[in-house]
Amino acid sequence: MKNSNNMLHFTFLGTSSGVPTLTRNVSGLAIRNSKNKDWILVDAGEGTQHRIQQAKLALQSLVAICITHVHGDHCYGLVGLLASAGMNARTAPLTIIAPKQIQQWIEVTAQLTDLHLPYPLNFIDVNEAAQIQQITDELSIQAHPLSHRVPSFAFSIIAQNTQKKLDTQALIQLGIPKGKAWGDLQQGQNIQFNGETLKATDFIQLQTKRVHTIVGGDNNRPELLAQACQDAQLLIHESTYTQAILDKVGSGPMHSSAKMVAEFAQHQNLSNLILTHFSPRHQDNTGQQAIAEEVKTFYTGNFYLAHDFDQFSLDETGQLTKIEKY
Amino acid sequence: MKNSNNMLHFTFLGTSSGVPTLTRNVSGLAIRNSKNKDWILVDAGEGTQHRIQQAKLALQSLVAICITHVHGDHCYGLVGLLASAGMNARTAPLTIIAPKQIQQWIEVTAQLTDLHLPYPLNFIDVNEAAQIQQITDELSIQAHPLSHRVPSFAFSIIAQNTQKKLDTQALIQLGIPKGKAWGDLQQGQNIQFNGETLKATDFIQLQTKRVHTIVGGDNNRPELLAQACQDAQLLIHESTYTQAILDKVGSGPMHSSAKMVAEFAQHQNLSNLILTHFSPRHQDNTGQQAIAEEVKTFYTGNFYLAHDFDQFSLDETGQLTKIEKY
Repeated sequence: MKNSNNMLHFTFLGTSSGVPTLTRNVSGLAIRNSKNKDWILVDAGEGTQHRIQQAKLALQSLVAICITHVHGDHCYGLVGLLASAGMNARTAPLTIIAPKQIQQWIEVTAQLTDLHLPYPLNFIDVNEAAQIQQITDELSIQAHPLSHRVPSFAFSIIAQNTQKKLDTQALIQLGIPKGKAWGDLQQGQNIQFNGETLKATDFIQLQTKRVHTIVGGDNNRPELLAQACQDAQLLIHESTYTQAILDKVGSGPMHSSAKMVAEFAQHQNLSNLILTHFSPRHQDNTGQQAIAEEVKTFYTGNFYLAHDFDQFSLDETGQLTKIEKY
Repeated sequence: MKNSNNMLHFTFLGTSSGVPTLTRNVSGLAIRNSKNKDWILVDAGEGTQHRIQQAKLALQSLVAICITHVHGDHCYGLVGLLASAGMNARTAPLTIIAPKQIQQWIEVTAQLTDLHLPYPLNFIDVNEAAQIQQITDELSIQAHPLSHRVPSFAFSIIAQNTQKKLDTQALIQLGIPKGKAWGDLQQGQNIQFNGETLKATDFIQLQTKRVHTIVGGDNNRPELLAQACQDAQLLIHESTYTQAILDKVGSGPMHSSAKMVAEFAQHQNLSNLILTHFSPRHQDNTGQQAIAEEVKTFYTGNFYLAHDFDQFSLDETGQLTKIEKY
């Protein structure tokens, strides 16, 4: 299922809300740049490093960790993961975009548990990440505030690459032969042809490809993402309950129902939606069916309910594909 | 393999040193009172709550957690486990015997991550547990200092129960018929027989059964347990490396080799030994064989190398049995 146009590759590491169950771990999502090995982790519930191992992702290639909010099912796996990366001899700096308390927690934990990381952490307060943060040449991250019992955030994960494309049609029209001349122009070098200087910049077109996904943390107001979603090809959002169960549980936990997210996605005209973070009561077939039925009732776009180890790819045309395992 | 004389039942939840691997988690050991559901957890590396779920142990029946030392592979699973017990509506107090830093870590973590446990924690500083701590009517715990890069401890886990046994031989000799009279005496009630008062206390013998196991934390001086082991039927101890690898790694990490533990156990005349906490390099068949060969060379007693989910029972006669799974 490899597709050279794929730009982001997703592996769900945990899709359970609150507590791990026998089939689903608490929150964690790996988002890899399809062009190389760089990847970003969104949330790190306890056991995320175990899932990373099972999914054959390399801690050495991890470029950033985003933590949506401070609740344990989204962050208690963070220190163990950092420690293991250290024991695996990581030396490259690692960016962490998270609420300020996460930085405090890591620092206090390191101090109390004799943890000495052999690589630097680059903490970015999630509030500062309201401005786009460039993580690598191709990957950038932006945070958007949500509504939950504690400050919670969604993250835009954007992959963008610019390719130099030679205007071959123009070269053919001018009668410039393929070979060294084309190669030099592609490399940005001017060439001599029939006594004239041909400037490389006149024959090179910059093509920018870009995909943008939004990954939400816990949130009971999907509409807060309305503006951010205008530019996104995919929304990954919690759907802890069906509406019926949410009505029964009450608004205290401040989570979204499938209906709430589906209605929002429909209203936004979003083309792709992946739901995750299911209450244990919705994890069996019946529970998943109830969620799926509710989404279908309110949303006509392309959607999936995530399971642990599910993988997806998103290409530059906005096509979301589930990767079947063999 | 149920045996009414079994008194302690062991489930290894993690047997890897430092980092989890695909087959072994970091440290965790469940020790259950075979007479009821009460159990004690020694160490709680990240993912211990997942292992507890898989081993079908109930967080509701957990009576105490002992943490041998502050290194992450022995404690990073603690807060997630406490949180999950809370979400499972635990209300019973839970005793934690651990270095003082663990209490601080839990308190700071709770504060920074919005964690509110619906049950009280009863912290006992591990240094205070040099005195025996009675956890339930039958289970008690005592801590013994070890030698490691940070303060590290072993724990004596002792199960003791006293049963009232009727002196049936004496009753038969006196011609006292079975039935109500025997029952009354067993219940502690004096009876009338041939015009005489027979005192229950004269016919009841108190039988005390006791088993004692020692579970060590990280340690490079097994001989520190010499005194504590005099009374123990089983020692469970780390054996991170073979002696050859320990010599190569050097003394910096302050761990034990299989040889060091085996020689100590032989010198102590210990009847049962279980080794655990293996370096990832010793986890494949070849590595395990090397450890086993080294133990056999220096120790003639009964020993096992623990794997994750291995279960053992220890009975009042000091018989250690591996429980085969069907």
